[in-house]
Amino acid sequence: MTMGSIGNPKSFQMIPVFLVLFLVSCPAIPAAARTRRIRTLKPCKELVFFFHDIIYDGTNAKNATSVIVAAPVGGDKLKLDGQNHFGDLAVFDDPITLDNNLHSKPVGRAQGFYFYDKKEIFTAWLGFSFVFNSTKHQGSINFAGADPLMNKTRDISVIGGTGDFFMARGVATLMTDAFEGEVYFRLRVDIKLYECW
Amino acid sequence: MTMGSIGNPKSFQMIPVFLVLFLVSCPAIPAAARTRRIRTLKPCKELVFFFHDIIYDGTNAKNATSVIVAAPVGGDKLKLDGQNHFGDLAVFDDPITLDNNLHSKPVGRAQGFYFYDKKEIFTAWLGFSFVFNSTKHQGSINFAGADPLMNKTRDISVIGGTGDFFMARGVATLMTDAFEGEVYFRLRVDIKLYECW
Amino acid sequence: MTMGSIGNPKSFQMIPVFLVLFLVSCPAIPAAARTRRIRTLKPCKELVFFFHDIIYDGTNAKNATSVIVAAPVGGDKLKLDGQNHFGDLAVFDDPITLDNNLHSKPVGRAQGFYFYDKKEIFTAWLGFSFVFNSTKHQGSINFAGADPLMNKTRDISVIGGTGDFFMARGVATLMTDAFEGEVYFRLRVDIKLYECW
Repeated sequence: MTMGSIGNPKSFQMIPVFLVLFLVSCPAIPAAARTRRIRTLKPCKELVFFFHDIIYDGTNAKNATSVIVAAPVGGDKLKLDGQNHFGDLAVFDDPITLDNNLHSKPVGRAQGFYFYDKKEIFTAWLGFSFVFNSTKHQGSINFAGADPLMNKTRDISVIGGTGDFFMARGVATLMTDAFEGEVYFRLRVDIKLYECW
Repeated sequence: MTMGSIGNPKSFQMIPVFLVLFLVSCPAIPAAARTRRIRTLKPCKELVFFFHDIIYDGTNAKNATSVIVAAPVGGDKLKLDGQNHFGDLAVFDDPITLDNNLHSKPVGRAQGFYFYDKKEIFTAWLGFSFVFNSTKHQGSINFAGADPLMNKTRDISVIGGTGDFFMARGVATLMTDAFEGEVYFRLRVDIKLYECW
Repeated sequence: MTMGSIGNPKSFQMIPVFLVLFLVSCPAIPAAARTRRIRTLKPCKELVFFFHDIIYDGTNAKNATSVIVAAPVGGDKLKLDGQNHFGDLAVFDDPITLDNNLHSKPVGRAQGFYFYDKKEIFTAWLGFSFVFNSTKHQGSINFAGADPLMNKTRDISVIGGTGDFFMARGVATLMTDAFEGEVYFRLRVDIKLYECW
């Protein structure tokens, strides 16, 4: 039999070929040959960061990294108030650190906004970017999602990225690492990317 | 001729192999073998929900599910006003139901924000999550996009998901199912996911 | 030797087959056969637009395309002020043009919000959509990301799309093409999609 008979489906033993394809086809081809994209069920990149939010309260202009800019009627924007802060919206530019020390050298900035969005308990919603400009990381990671912050962990989406994080997608797990009254909180963010290019 | 000659491109009959690959290669390999991701032109998951928004107007604190937190200069945040509400921004925590009855048992919460963004007609922009915590669904779906709400249907993006909706992407079609003055509206949301993991 | 021996790995010369697969497998199969999605390292679609933002300052109601709706305590929402406008949030409905002329016929609208988010320098964060409804383009492109606007170019994410831009993902490069005081700016946006369906 010659190779020509590959063209004859009737003489073609599908199952073994299928197995071979199963083993050597798409997943085995170096990703660069298809595109540079890598997708897996295991994260293709994992990163852990902390960021630190100090809300402006009228007395801490120098240290504050976030400020309340919107609130329901009657809100004074100098403190989180109302029913579980429902409706208070803050804009932030928070330092990102590699450990949980506010005074560690920042490796980037977390920039975006959050607002409290439930009357009965504390929950928030976040849209923000991690902006890196260091020898280690260049570029940004963009996030969005609900933050039911009374839960120990909560997942938001990595919706895109640029630079070193070009086209990234994934899930970020937020954990409240510390909070001090209504003025300071620190989040730990475990980023798991499942699409890397 | 032996199989060894597969290595000789000149003796290799490309077209039939190509056809075979065409039929049995990537699309036919069980998704789990590649990754668990499924992508199709047909939705890999379809969901229909309703959510209900009752804007705080100063008199309905108990029932209100959303509140105006930002408005142009002069806006009083107790009613949508100005030119087609241009610039009014609301934060919401709306019940999600399976049918169009406000009083049906909620299956989750729609949490996020919207704002009106055109002077000449009503249009809005939405960023929000569907947050599920039930026996049926766990996790969240994240949305963003323009809502030209005078159109019968309008499409926004599913930009990510967590839990049962891990890494979801798709399109959601919004339809105004009802509205009562400036205080209540109900949206029907037809979610079609084209990336499922 | 018969084709049956393909099933015998020992007699199967893997490397040449691998090379063939490398050449003809997934990337070579017409995208339509897999899904209609195309992913490449080169953009699958490139678009260049300009959009024009005229901020309401209390005197230009007719021409203004954006309005400040939120600001830190003390901000008057009639001008960008404070420390590098930190915390000022604007909602916009800006005309999109194909060239840098504000008076060219718009091909769509850029609708969304931006806010200034750093005390020390000008930086912003944007969430918006390009909304097209013309013979040339129907549908929307959704964007999010950090805009360190003092940089000549800065990248944000294309997080989704609808209509002609169904399921789009990519990167958009922003360039400040012009600005006049605090009232007018024009951005050039180079959109590169890396996922097209």
